[in-house]
Amino acid sequence: MKKQYAIIGLGRFGNSVALTLVNAGHEVLAIDADEDRVQRIADCVTHAVVADSTEENTLKSLGIRNFDIVIVAIGQNVQASVLTTLLLKELGVNYVVAKADNSLHGKMLEKVGADKVVFPERDMGQRIAHNLMSTNVIDYLEVAPDLGIIEVDVPQELLNVRLLDTNLRADYGITVLAIRRNGKMTLSPNPGERFLPDDKLILVGEGSGIQRFEEKYF
Amino acid sequence: MKKQYAIIGLGRFGNSVALTLVNAGHEVLAIDADEDRVQRIADCVTHAVVADSTEENTLKSLGIRNFDIVIVAIGQNVQASVLTTLLLKELGVNYVVAKADNSLHGKMLEKVGADKVVFPERDMGQRIAHNLMSTNVIDYLEVAPDLGIIEVDVPQELLNVRLLDTNLRADYGITVLAIRRNGKMTLSPNPGERFLPDDKLILVGEGSGIQRFEEKYF
Ligand SMILES: Nc1ncnc2c1ncn2[C@@H]1O[C@H](COP(=O)(O)OP(=O)(O)OP(=O)(O)O)[C@@H](O)[C@H]1O
Ligand SMILES: Nc1ncnc2c1ncn2[C@@H]1O[C@H](COP(=O)(O)OP(=O)(O)OP(=O)(O)O)[C@@H](O)[C@H]1O
Ligand SMILES: [Ca+2]
Ligand SMILES: [Ca+2]
Ligand SMILES: [Ca+2]
Ligand SMILES: [Ca+2]
Repeated sequence: MKKQYAIIGLGRFGNSVALTLVNAGHEVLAIDADEDRVQRIADCVTHAVVADSTEENTLKSLGIRNFDIVIVAIGQNVQASVLTTLLLKELGVNYVVAKADNSLHGKMLEKVGADKVVFPERDMGQRIAHNLMSTNVIDYLEVAPDLGIIEVDVPQELLNVRLLDTNLRADYGITVLAIRRNGKMTLSPNPGERFLPDDKLILVGEGSGIQRFEEKYF
Repeated sequence: MKKQYAIIGLGRFGNSVALTLVNAGHEVLAIDADEDRVQRIADCVTHAVVADSTEENTLKSLGIRNFDIVIVAIGQNVQASVLTTLLLKELGVNYVVAKADNSLHGKMLEKVGADKVVFPERDMGQRIAHNLMSTNVIDYLEVAPDLGIIEVDVPQELLNVRLLDTNLRADYGITVLAIRRNGKMTLSPNPGERFLPDDKLILVGEGSGIQRFEEKYF
């Protein structure tokens, strides 16, 4: 059975969550106190209503406790965000995800029962900063604490070298996940594969290994 | 030589970029028109100044063209964001990254010369939505178009099965990147490794393979 989602707060983050869920075929109720924001998304989601989520009776009459997952995407109005989260848990919503502005906000959300707290601006800020630190690193993703993925231009020194002759695994604990060549991605490339000019490499490894790799090759 | 960064706009995203760069040992100039925001970050960055980035002379007197990378982290004031980006490129800044609110905003930023446009709220909204679609998927990351990473609880059916007996590679194009067990991460686990209860698996593969895997096992 498909899950039912409700999103409260239709800023940039809330909109993106709602549309991604709808595009994947899920039922989505979109809620905002601002009529314009509700109208703008109404044609794209299952239901859209203008409502103040800090009013308990409003939440009840929307049947909010029947939703499997409710996402509170109110960032700047900390009081509304915390109160909404509290009411949702009191009304018996099974899983509440809440967006936090900063760590104090995050702590309050946990205290009132949020099942998951997310920090979109903080997390993306960290990601972009990492991407900018090295010009050769096209993208950096933290998969887990101390497990990172980077996309890099093939280092000059590795041109025409076969994957099995690189020792990236032994020396840096790095695995070549994929090679992007002429816009085509080859997953888990062959050990006999040679690196060509303009190849982009997608690598995975621990933070310290990735750092040593960057220092050696760039 | 370490790079010099300037961040214009100290909202949640700008703050996070600035602090991540500083923590990695880089020089950071932080700029905002709002004195409170500048004061709050002043002790953490190399320099912090109150300035309106839409004023050409202000940017000149800050010597902005000598910075290697300037990040325009103004989201809601589209006009200020676009004008700032335009001035930075006209003044000769080598690499300008700009934050966009929506795709129209993004197109304008590209038009006036932004070297990279980022959409933090939209991208994180997509990521969180993917994480919420399956309860078994703890985390989902899009590494590249059609290359995804998921973290999942070990499926019931794979308990006590050896990695080499799973056929995840052959059947789903999926590689087991790591196993997280008792909070400890084992990268590139052994083919002979058996999956235990409470293991979390970090898997990489193409979107379609990951989807078939989820449908089969969860
Ligand atoms: N009590 C409430 N009930 C319903 N909606 C609310 C309530 N309080 C705030 N909102 C809505 O939440 C939305 C998001 O709020 P806000 O813009 O402050 O957050 P934000 O974190 O800056 O958003 P973004 O995702 O764009 O960064 C707004 O559209 C606002 O109308
Ligand atoms: N012309 C300007 N010169 C300098 N700073 C500016 C200018 N215009 C806006 N700012 C600053 O940019 C910062 C971010 O702006 P705003 O809060 O609108 O963006 P946002 O996208 O909502 O931020 P967040 O990253 O928190 O989501 C604010 O602190 C604001 O004072
Ligand atoms: Ca880069
Ligand atoms: Ca905002
Ligand atoms: Ca925001
Ligand atoms: Ca999940």
